[in-house]
Amino acid sequence: MSDIDERPHAPTDPRLVRAGQDGSSAADPAEWTCPVPLADSAAVLMGHGGGGAMSAELVEQLFLPAFRSRDGETPVELADAAVLELCGSRIAFTTDSFVVRPLFFPGGSIGDLAVNGTVNDLAMVGARPWCLSTAFILEEGTDLAELRRVADALGTAARAAGVRLVTGDTKVVDAGHGDGIYVNTTGLGLVPDGVDYRPGRAGPGDVVIVSGEIGAHGVAVLSCREGLEFDTAVRSDTRPLHGLVAAMGRAGGDIHALRDPTRGGLAATLNEIARDASVGVDVRERDIPIAGPVADACSILGLDPFAIANEGVLVAMVAAEDADRVLDAMHAHPDGRDAAPIGEVTANNPGVVAARTGLGGERVIDLPTGTELPRIC
Amino acid sequence: MSDIDERPHAPTDPRLVRAGQDGSSAADPAEWTCPVPLADSAAVLMGHGGGGAMSAELVEQLFLPAFRSRDGETPVELADAAVLELCGSRIAFTTDSFVVRPLFFPGGSIGDLAVNGTVNDLAMVGARPWCLSTAFILEEGTDLAELRRVADALGTAARAAGVRLVTGDTKVVDAGHGDGIYVNTTGLGLVPDGVDYRPGRAGPGDVVIVSGEIGAHGVAVLSCREGLEFDTAVRSDTRPLHGLVAAMGRAGGDIHALRDPTRGGLAATLNEIARDASVGVDVRERDIPIAGPVADACSILGLDPFAIANEGVLVAMVAAEDADRVLDAMHAHPDGRDAAPIGEVTANNPGVVAARTGLGGERVIDLPTGTELPRIC
Repeated sequence: MSDIDERPHAPTDPRLVRAGQDGSSAADPAEWTCPVPLADSAAVLMGHGGGGAMSAELVEQLFLPAFRSRDGETPVELADAAVLELCGSRIAFTTDSFVVRPLFFPGGSIGDLAVNGTVNDLAMVGARPWCLSTAFILEEGTDLAELRRVADALGTAARAAGVRLVTGDTKVVDAGHGDGIYVNTTGLGLVPDGVDYRPGRAGPGDVVIVSGEIGAHGVAVLSCREGLEFDTAVRSDTRPLHGLVAAMGRAGGDIHALRDPTRGGLAATLNEIARDASVGVDVRERDIPIAGPVADACSILGLDPFAIANEGVLVAMVAAEDADRVLDAMHAHPDGRDAAPIGEVTANNPGVVAARTGLGGERVIDLPTGTELPRIC
Repeated sequence: MSDIDERPHAPTDPRLVRAGQDGSSAADPAEWTCPVPLADSAAVLMGHGGGGAMSAELVEQLFLPAFRSRDGETPVELADAAVLELCGSRIAFTTDSFVVRPLFFPGGSIGDLAVNGTVNDLAMVGARPWCLSTAFILEEGTDLAELRRVADALGTAARAAGVRLVTGDTKVVDAGHGDGIYVNTTGLGLVPDGVDYRPGRAGPGDVVIVSGEIGAHGVAVLSCREGLEFDTAVRSDTRPLHGLVAAMGRAGGDIHALRDPTRGGLAATLNEIARDASVGVDVRERDIPIAGPVADACSILGLDPFAIANEGVLVAMVAAEDADRVLDAMHAHPDGRDAAPIGEVTANNPGVVAARTGLGGERVIDLPTGTELPRIC
């Protein structure tokens, strides 16, 4: 991994331009960062949607107490999907809204994300995706041709992933009260017998595996949104991961936990697993796969690739004795060719994620607070 | 039912005031109507969200072709909920986004609608509601205290309806690209053995029953939004209807079809059933229950109560020989006390809904085109 500054700095690298009318105006990193969070803020901040500490605070302090069940439980599932039992079957159930801007970006669109994001949340509990609902909130005045392109992309992604679109809803809000197209997908999947992937099952000794190069989605959307151009175009990694997960399962090893590091990136995902399983996580920065252009872009823009959203990568916690066979199965699958072991789960420092840097030092990887890149999915 | 003009007219009735600073400025009905639809419109219009002909056109011409399955089917369910088979069980699955403005109105809030609307879509296929997902799209700057009130209302409504909130999502959009709080709920329910309520099962001879007084929700939201005041306050009828549906089922009669006339009102619902079952529907205007203050408000505002959204009323098509026992069961239930037979299904004029007026004439009730009241749910 490249040497990354931890604070945004002005992009002065000549490879970086903003594609304005004259191609010369500088990008302003201040536009990409979230204000410092206020625990006592009286209003919703962008960071509340970032998938980090502020998001967690909103869920834990506002939604969970309000959503307790009749018997006082707060049964809202904090994993990627809830798993419900019905007549001996286990049904995975998960919801996501997509508000990415722009609607189309290198490598994908809001339609792809709406399918793959929800399919992947199902896959992370080991479920085979079954069907999706789609719910659109359209802004008055949105170009119907653009809506058609989004719907076509969504349908194409669903066919590619093998999920059926079985029910839907459309609402329209007056101009100025939306942003073209928002879409929610809610997914149902079936969890095969014997599969039990949960963050809480991660345990000391587990090998931490990442399935591919990180950071591509965030950099692709940001560079498109801001009109930045790099020597090498970066494309979103959006893709469905249930095929890879099934291949990993067939390898026969004991997979304890799976997560896809979307909002908040690898940093948020590893911290959440460390918290949920009360374990430490030690990773080696130099072993984390990242494409050169993505590393360069992060370096230029002052972004931490650990905190950037991915849409086609998973993190697995696998029993040490089974790690090699699971890795072999991943390498044999087209969506896991770049899979790599990046660290271990430890009993030391429960709840803490630590990274050994390229220079041999060690640093703590914190749960991101707000969001560096709002509306990334 | 009151004698209702079919076109909006200026509200000159002295009972109607706009509660402005001086309480004197007149309401402008033009604000409540949708522009005439253009089949070749290049952009999304408010009417595309109205639940009438424009909504149907968008679904049939844009979404269904895009969402066809791998084998070319267009399996998107046009009933209130899709019904899926799993290991001998039938699972109902439905989604709805809620964008009502204002968030709180007499008799309810967006939190109540988000639960009851989805619970009722499950109930209309005869399902017992099981659990819901919740997905919020929040606008940056939204008052957290208001969000808490909405979450509390949603949780309270879920406990009242006996459904669990099991998984969720929160996104934040930048100020100016939302409208405070949008919420999607997606619901799962279980359809009991032997239950088969589908619009297509309505047949000639069926008695058309409405479970209560119509029009209250639309008038309540509109009067709150526009600051109108009437002699008697009108409250939304939002409520979960699965208890009433279960009571109707226990009566043992052959219920063919159930629908809740939300967006597009009774007019849209009856037209959809007439179309789906290729039958005619004849109703008697004077038998349709409507509260005096709602009828008065509609008369003053030039609104057609047939086309106004309801949130706590259902329409049932019941075999003639069983209508009395189903009606008795409805009258014995708190949510069906005002139930009334309002007409019959006929073999004449398939696809046409006709109303016998109070004066003995007959008129066709068309599928509403766009929407008289945008953002009503």
